[in-house]
Amino acid sequence: MSSRVHNFNAGPASHPLPVLEGIQAEFLDFKGSGMSVVEVSHRSKTFEEVIEDAAARVRRLLQLDDTFHVLFLQGGASLQFAMVPMNLLPEGRSADYVNTGTWATKAIKECTIQGKMANVVASSEDKGFSYIPKEISFSPEAAYAHITSNNTIKGTQWTSFPDTGGVPLICDMSSDIMSRAFDAAPFGLIYAGAQKNLGPAGVTLVIVRQDMLERVPKDLPTMLKYSTYVAHSSMFNTPPCFAVYTIHLVLKWLEETIGGLDKMEEINREKADLLYRTIDTSEFYRGTAETESRSVMNVTFRLPTEDLEKQFVQEAAQHGLIGLKGHRSVGGCRASIYNATSLEAVKALVGFMEEFARKNG
Amino acid sequence: MSSRVHNFNAGPASHPLPVLEGIQAEFLDFKGSGMSVVEVSHRSKTFEEVIEDAAARVRRLLQLDDTFHVLFLQGGASLQFAMVPMNLLPEGRSADYVNTGTWATKAIKECTIQGKMANVVASSEDKGFSYIPKEISFSPEAAYAHITSNNTIKGTQWTSFPDTGGVPLICDMSSDIMSRAFDAAPFGLIYAGAQKNLGPAGVTLVIVRQDMLERVPKDLPTMLKYSTYVAHSSMFNTPPCFAVYTIHLVLKWLEETIGGLDKMEEINREKADLLYRTIDTSEFYRGTAETESRSVMNVTFRLPTEDLEKQFVQEAAQHGLIGLKGHRSVGGCRASIYNATSLEAVKALVGFMEEFARKNG
Repeated sequence: MSSRVHNFNAGPASHPLPVLEGIQAEFLDFKGSGMSVVEVSHRSKTFEEVIEDAAARVRRLLQLDDTFHVLFLQGGASLQFAMVPMNLLPEGRSADYVNTGTWATKAIKECTIQGKMANVVASSEDKGFSYIPKEISFSPEAAYAHITSNNTIKGTQWTSFPDTGGVPLICDMSSDIMSRAFDAAPFGLIYAGAQKNLGPAGVTLVIVRQDMLERVPKDLPTMLKYSTYVAHSSMFNTPPCFAVYTIHLVLKWLEETIGGLDKMEEINREKADLLYRTIDTSEFYRGTAETESRSVMNVTFRLPTEDLEKQFVQEAAQHGLIGLKGHRSVGGCRASIYNATSLEAVKALVGFMEEFARKNG
Repeated sequence: MSSRVHNFNAGPASHPLPVLEGIQAEFLDFKGSGMSVVEVSHRSKTFEEVIEDAAARVRRLLQLDDTFHVLFLQGGASLQFAMVPMNLLPEGRSADYVNTGTWATKAIKECTIQGKMANVVASSEDKGFSYIPKEISFSPEAAYAHITSNNTIKGTQWTSFPDTGGVPLICDMSSDIMSRAFDAAPFGLIYAGAQKNLGPAGVTLVIVRQDMLERVPKDLPTMLKYSTYVAHSSMFNTPPCFAVYTIHLVLKWLEETIGGLDKMEEINREKADLLYRTIDTSEFYRGTAETESRSVMNVTFRLPTEDLEKQFVQEAAQHGLIGLKGHRSVGGCRASIYNATSLEAVKALVGFMEEFARKNG
């Protein structure tokens, strides 16, 4: 029997082991139905309970009031880059965007490609996206202000969300949703591809505030209108059932085993602190993000040479520490430590890092 | 230990048992990676082999030449209803549509909602969509001709595909793809939501002919352009990995255990013949589709009264025969007998039907 590794993948990423074991156990017989979860009708009571409970758990965990709708879509955050302006940016108005790296840049591109006005009010491109901009002047007349809560590639994260003076915030939270508690009130829409903190690739969580729906143009294709998913409780057509089912189990784990977002944030902070401390107290490792903007989810760092980085990633893998290579666009090293990555895994990584530095420093 | 039922669901639907068992066996440790298939990177060699082999198997099974691209998208056939005209129907031209029921009607709607010209050249609405129209006059100048190969709700199916005089056929094959062999040459594009004959909900197979790509407008959102999926081998962003992985295993089963599409068609025909014979030789059951247009995938029938239909569905479920209720829009009964529904399951159903007729006829 082969053993499970410590998984630091950036996404798709680590899942809680009890969740995976639960899925495995009932894979041929979902809740006594005599069918696999992939074989039951999405209109069955059994599945409807799953998707409804998943939405209810999102609502509880994020303390969303009734003005918010919790939806499950397909197409990843990449489709949301397009759907947000398509639905929420009316003709003749403009939207503010903060550019904190690759994903924000893509969001801006999908707005302008539609011939719509994306106003880049702040950017950290001047320093290679190594920080989150501060003191931003948002436009009071903007239709919305778009931010990316966490940059997986550069390892930066908004530690608190900016004051837009009442302009609805739209946020891509793909890589840090459910990693911490926050006040949802200023957000018009939040979206998150599932494959980092929520579950498997193939489903996108969208949280939209009721007042945003008034903007949705009537002549959009049905599958590209947020209002369709609201009207049909995310079941206008067959949803990605297995991914929704897995999210449901991950959220259950988060509520019932971890104990909610405050507790999750505490654990996440402990994991990140441990790693950053290892980096900061070493002459060998060097963090790439500015200290104040450091991500609690993706810890990016460099070694003295690229050869050593290559060796580091390889030797780590031999020690069962997987996924430590930086994003192909920037190189270096990266440890993604989402909710499901245990403190134990981070301790194993830190032990390896210290040993590696000693041998090669 | 509870036993598996015979699953006649219309979709999500039955999967081959060996496929489910294989997934279950390696769910905590995918190909010796020490990770679940939902945890490995989509950019890993392990996953790339899966998606590439899935595409290669589609190509072999359907005998597609190099002019076709095999793609995996999200959003179901419902998103394809919109993407087809968005990508392939240039301004100022019109497309022919054949209306054979609910799904075709939706495809037409998503074309016209974009302000594009959908020319309905034939319809079977006059007889409640109980047949497939014949001798259709397609427009020689149409950008494409759209058909729905099988109507899951009314139980009708094109037994052979129409001659459009060279106009590219576009076909929604969601409910009968891989159930039989056919000549792909006349098709400009084929799409199929996976959850009937291919695997779990959450992935859509799209097969597009190279010459169609020249029509794709440059200013479409990236995720809505077929050319994006071609350029990035379906990995512009994270694909729905688990669904693709399952499709891959289903296609492997189809090639290696069943022995390809000719063999599959033979089995499917045997299953359908058995059911239709039971209906036709009975005074109790009545088929709803015209004989020549009967579907090999979805066998729709009525009983003398609605009360008896209700009782039939309930008692069948007690006998482990699941999913026999007709679509909520039409009522009656329906047995969906996709590839993964075994001859044994159909024999069990036929036995039950005969017994039920004897008791209640």
